[in-house]
Amino acid sequence: MSAFDFTPLLPPGSPPPAAKWTGSPKYNFTGGNNDPAQVPVDGLMAAADAVLRREGQSLAYYGVANGPQGYKPLRDFLAAKLRRDAAIACTADDILLVSGSLQAFDLINGALVAPGETVIVERDTYGGMLNRYARAGIKAVGVPLDKDGMRMDALEETLTALAAKDIRAKYIYTIPTVQNPTGTIMPMDRRERLLALSEKFGVPIFEDDCYSDLIWSGGRAPALYSMTKSGNVIHIGSFSKSVAPALRVGFIVAPWQILSRMIALKVDAGSGALEQMVLAEYCTPHFETHVPDLRRGLRKKLEALMDALEEQFGTAAEFDDPPGGIFLWVKLPDQVDTMKLYQSALAAGVAINPGPEWSTDAAHSGSRMRLCFASPTETEIREGIAILADICRKEFGVPQRSGNIERRKAR
Amino acid sequence: MSAFDFTPLLPPGSPPPAAKWTGSPKYNFTGGNNDPAQVPVDGLMAAADAVLRREGQSLAYYGVANGPQGYKPLRDFLAAKLRRDAAIACTADDILLVSGSLQAFDLINGALVAPGETVIVERDTYGGMLNRYARAGIKAVGVPLDKDGMRMDALEETLTALAAKDIRAKYIYTIPTVQNPTGTIMPMDRRERLLALSEKFGVPIFEDDCYSDLIWSGGRAPALYSMTKSGNVIHIGSFSKSVAPALRVGFIVAPWQILSRMIALKVDAGSGALEQMVLAEYCTPHFETHVPDLRRGLRKKLEALMDALEEQFGTAAEFDDPPGGIFLWVKLPDQVDTMKLYQSALAAGVAINPGPEWSTDAAHSGSRMRLCFASPTETEIREGIAILADICRKEFGVPQRSGNIERRKAR
Repeated sequence: MSAFDFTPLLPPGSPPPAAKWTGSPKYNFTGGNNDPAQVPVDGLMAAADAVLRREGQSLAYYGVANGPQGYKPLRDFLAAKLRRDAAIACTADDILLVSGSLQAFDLINGALVAPGETVIVERDTYGGMLNRYARAGIKAVGVPLDKDGMRMDALEETLTALAAKDIRAKYIYTIPTVQNPTGTIMPMDRRERLLALSEKFGVPIFEDDCYSDLIWSGGRAPALYSMTKSGNVIHIGSFSKSVAPALRVGFIVAPWQILSRMIALKVDAGSGALEQMVLAEYCTPHFETHVPDLRRGLRKKLEALMDALEEQFGTAAEFDDPPGGIFLWVKLPDQVDTMKLYQSALAAGVAINPGPEWSTDAAHSGSRMRLCFASPTETEIREGIAILADICRKEFGVPQRSGNIERRKAR
Repeated sequence: MSAFDFTPLLPPGSPPPAAKWTGSPKYNFTGGNNDPAQVPVDGLMAAADAVLRREGQSLAYYGVANGPQGYKPLRDFLAAKLRRDAAIACTADDILLVSGSLQAFDLINGALVAPGETVIVERDTYGGMLNRYARAGIKAVGVPLDKDGMRMDALEETLTALAAKDIRAKYIYTIPTVQNPTGTIMPMDRRERLLALSEKFGVPIFEDDCYSDLIWSGGRAPALYSMTKSGNVIHIGSFSKSVAPALRVGFIVAPWQILSRMIALKVDAGSGALEQMVLAEYCTPHFETHVPDLRRGLRKKLEALMDALEEQFGTAAEFDDPPGGIFLWVKLPDQVDTMKLYQSALAAGVAINPGPEWSTDAAHSGSRMRLCFASPTETEIREGIAILADICRKEFGVPQRSGNIERRKAR
């Protein structure tokens, strides 16, 4: 009998099928993976034991009988943490727990944006969001950044130009605190200007705050959500960067008028409860001591990455030392095409994020790349960057062989 | 300052906002909640301890570095279990782990069905699926059932009538083994006929197998997936009914040509890994002994429910003693409108599923209701059904006061 053919049944515009997974690249500078040595395994074990012993039977109920917004003690922890760290005044009732911030994206897009509609984003921004826009037929208009994040003059121009065409963007998506990929932090005056522009044009702000725990200094600016008086901000965050990405727990804080719309769209019978329970039990006593340790480890890896780039690429790799985070945004010489570099490097076991996948502007980002440094070891960082430099040199003639490398080879 | 108004930004056709959650009803006969006493808490604690101790650091990687199909040991457990119980020959590579079977629904619908297109379902079927169709603008054509599940003569008629209108349905959705809500099990000859009709009309089968572990006798018919030679079946299952619903872990088994399409649509960076890890660690040694205990407990609750209905409703409640599962499909006298009964009962703290929410045919299901019995205690079952009978009597005149109740009141 011939095999049943599903092809004629696929709707038009279906994305291409996934390829079979063949393992992770040896040198992986992509993705929000974290440092395995920094996963607080003992703390999570103790938390799992305590919370299952006390409340394990409640797993018999969808959402452990805490309603559609998720496990209440984790929402209580977040309300206290957001008040302390981000100056956000909210309660558990203002928070929706979700399956990672990616589900937050889907719920916010679902609640506000129809196919064909327009959103405003930072010109260089999170690639996973740009993929979502492409698939959903949503138009993303990019606003340039400088060393202080999204440029407010350019935002005002964009909003004005859209208004002239009778287009009201559905939101302004921003990562104001350790911007992905540029690592910038938006200063207070620019935050105030952003809030005012949002109100003037009736376009709400979608604040993605997922890196704000990872600032080396430990301090941070107040969240946009904490600064608004009109309730024009939707705020999201995650435990992926601060505890562990495989635990798929994120959250949305928003005014009830729009949070209630997202809850109505969240028809998944709740996000995984065990992960919420273990996180609440672990984080309530330990988050504040865990995160500074994590930051120190990440900073050390960043320094290894910057050293390796300096050694291997010399002046051919330009970047700013970021104030926090897990990635570095690197400018290579103009003749480098990072989409091509990405392919060749991957074939050699080195994975990078090519700039055009992280930007609305292919010309601007064509010679840029994002390098994530949290999960590879310092040895892998050194080896991987050396391989990357070799490949880049062979394909694009840069970097020229540096004195450092010559010296090392002669040893 | 006036509050920012999100209303003008909502896309047309947005569902109504969620109401604030005000707690669970006291007598809850809805939802797939399970028996809290039967959650294997000690086993899950031991599993969490062992797997975190051994592999906790891998939580630093999305999908614990097991690729997009999910934690490999859980897929290995499932491949062995499906072979043993459902006669399905598959390997870990044929399985996609998902965030509960609801995510399986979304991925299957996303891969195969565009808005406005048609699917075939059992006339009485899972309400959560009907909601999804309504929201997505998918047309669901219901095929009547009898005591052996979906009627093949009616299915052939439906397929023929659609073909005459040049409509090719995207799939036939069936719960062949302990059908929700009717509890029927499709016999072998009908399964064979279903597979043949699917091939003849080029319409694949979507087999929802989530209750098959809960058959009182412990036996089960081979899955449709195991019987096909052409690969025309997509099979899904879940741990919600057999271990705990709050652990949001389900799975899809499908030919690679269509599984690869679903993996491409699953852009959530993986389902929660801790729950997958704990389930694999627990289920591999304990699933086979846990489930028979669970079944015995459920059967006892079902008997309490059937006794209470007999006592309170007498002949006014008609139902078949189901061969397994967690629900009972009850026919009340024709004058009862279960949509109205549902409202009045809920106000009195008794939640039921009114038939029309579980059916494509409002006339047929208008005096029917689904009662879930796994989570309430036997006392709650007795009390809740007594209250339900009182309300039904006041509103619809049935059941007439029974001798049993008169006797009890006189005591």
